[in-house]
Amino acid sequence: MAVYTEVPDEMLRAFVTEYDIGKVVSFKGIAEGVENSNYLLQTEHANFILTLYEKRVDPEDLPYFLGLMDHLAASDIPCPTPIHGRDSKALRTVAGRPAAIISFLQGVARSRPSPRDCAQLGKHLAHFHLAGMSYGTKRDNSLSVSGWRPLFNDSVPRANTIQSKLKEIISKELDYLEAHWPQGLPEGVIHADLFPDNVFFLGDDLSGLIDFYFACNDFLAYDLAICLNAWCFEPDGAFNITKARMLLSAYGNIRPLNRDELAALPVLARGAAMRFLLTRVYDWLHQVEGALVKPKNPMEFLGRLRFHQAVTGPGAYGLD
Amino acid sequence: MAVYTEVPDEMLRAFVTEYDIGKVVSFKGIAEGVENSNYLLQTEHANFILTLYEKRVDPEDLPYFLGLMDHLAASDIPCPTPIHGRDSKALRTVAGRPAAIISFLQGVARSRPSPRDCAQLGKHLAHFHLAGMSYGTKRDNSLSVSGWRPLFNDSVPRANTIQSKLKEIISKELDYLEAHWPQGLPEGVIHADLFPDNVFFLGDDLSGLIDFYFACNDFLAYDLAICLNAWCFEPDGAFNITKARMLLSAYGNIRPLNRDELAALPVLARGAAMRFLLTRVYDWLHQVEGALVKPKNPMEFLGRLRFHQAVTGPGAYGLD
Repeated sequence: MAVYTEVPDEMLRAFVTEYDIGKVVSFKGIAEGVENSNYLLQTEHANFILTLYEKRVDPEDLPYFLGLMDHLAASDIPCPTPIHGRDSKALRTVAGRPAAIISFLQGVARSRPSPRDCAQLGKHLAHFHLAGMSYGTKRDNSLSVSGWRPLFNDSVPRANTIQSKLKEIISKELDYLEAHWPQGLPEGVIHADLFPDNVFFLGDDLSGLIDFYFACNDFLAYDLAICLNAWCFEPDGAFNITKARMLLSAYGNIRPLNRDELAALPVLARGAAMRFLLTRVYDWLHQVEGALVKPKNPMEFLGRLRFHQAVTGPGAYGLD
Repeated sequence: MAVYTEVPDEMLRAFVTEYDIGKVVSFKGIAEGVENSNYLLQTEHANFILTLYEKRVDPEDLPYFLGLMDHLAASDIPCPTPIHGRDSKALRTVAGRPAAIISFLQGVARSRPSPRDCAQLGKHLAHFHLAGMSYGTKRDNSLSVSGWRPLFNDSVPRANTIQSKLKEIISKELDYLEAHWPQGLPEGVIHADLFPDNVFFLGDDLSGLIDFYFACNDFLAYDLAICLNAWCFEPDGAFNITKARMLLSAYGNIRPLNRDELAALPVLARGAAMRFLLTRVYDWLHQVEGALVKPKNPMEFLGRLRFHQAVTGPGAYGLD
């Protein structure tokens, strides 16, 4: 649910003349992405998305994100492509916000991904990781292990208002993760937020990966660990090992995991569960009254964390 | 801003097979209409709007609204047309809500309508009123003069928390309106909520009238009085007599107002200002915490009411 900044029609018309995309025939705020304002923009020629970047996105990161989308699209990864204006720029300003027009991808997100969908995801994620290898720009992952304790410290005083002992559980897990976080795994560009609502399907096939605004450089296997958390648990909290196997094996067919990556999967999965647990706890405790976006329940990720804590090796994820 | 009910993709696919509109290629919640959940639905063949009717719409009224859109579209009024399923029905249920797929209209709403836009509105409103004459079904206007006092009574105890003496001002005006409300004016189907956000333009021309979910049978001139309030005041509260003249004369060229209608315009305009003042006061005092829709400031319509109270005849609206 995300339209925060309104774009009056005359401002839109003036903005669109900076591009060679024809005249506007329709313009509607859409409920996609929770961080930015998104509009479906239809012109005489095609459909586009106009994104206005809101305060949670650092404007300094935008060239990284837009450049990445350019790079990936040139490598045939199914992702939105920034549209460049007549002055060749993709990033400009509208209604006082940094803004970009990106191409429109067909497809619909899955509410309940199937094991087959997980295999599609694995294949495309591996291709995405390989394509990202040649992207020259870097961006640190502010939401990796070194970023978790500061985030936690902002929530400590009130964490136990969500669930008793939550503070102690998180604190102990952070100690563990800081002591056991792997080193030297293969790195590259990761999506870092590849939940089912950021993946479109058309019929049986994956048709698009969207929302690259958490992308950064980190361990590639950490991206896979995020997907394990985001795609392989059922609504009742149960882990679906078939989905995990399909995800990991389809990924491994394109980019095989090395022995260190396999061994690190459980701790990476714990870390990924921690990352979403922490941001959800933070958002829960920092709710803005009347905000458009209702925070998601953080406790979902405590359950996932507990699952990964009990895992003793990659076999638990369906790997032989 | 309006997506209240989520439609999972598998539910959507099943729903769409009841129509002959091809397969779904895209589906996005859109921020249009404040009463219902609206989705932009793209299929292989065309674009559509899927509307799920939420609690503010009485399901018993839906056949009136959908039948009206069918009737108007058949009369070449630029408005959405309900899509009928393979069983010929337009109204069915999805995700536990009454729902309909309607055709998609191109165009963009004007943020700041020009006098020329007001003339376009007048012309199309007159054609709409004439086309509505042959619509066989009727629906009373629950938000006309007899409905205002009950609405006010629900807000009385707290009205003065918005502005001092608001209770007294409204109460006195209601007395006046109840005593002077006209009788015997030409009646027919009115839109009853034709604000600029419900009117699309493509280039210089009006391309669509949308959101018929307040439509009802009432004095045709009252619809025009609503448009005077909705289109002819500037953001600073000033009345723009040029816009009013363009609206009324373009309307009159298609359906001339009779003497009684002309004489009643000031009181109808007072009534229209009262209707929106009252619902906005009500919404302001009944805000739901965390609701997606922030209520609009009611005081805007108190200013408009005061303008109309000072009017002594139709000449104030630019008529000779």
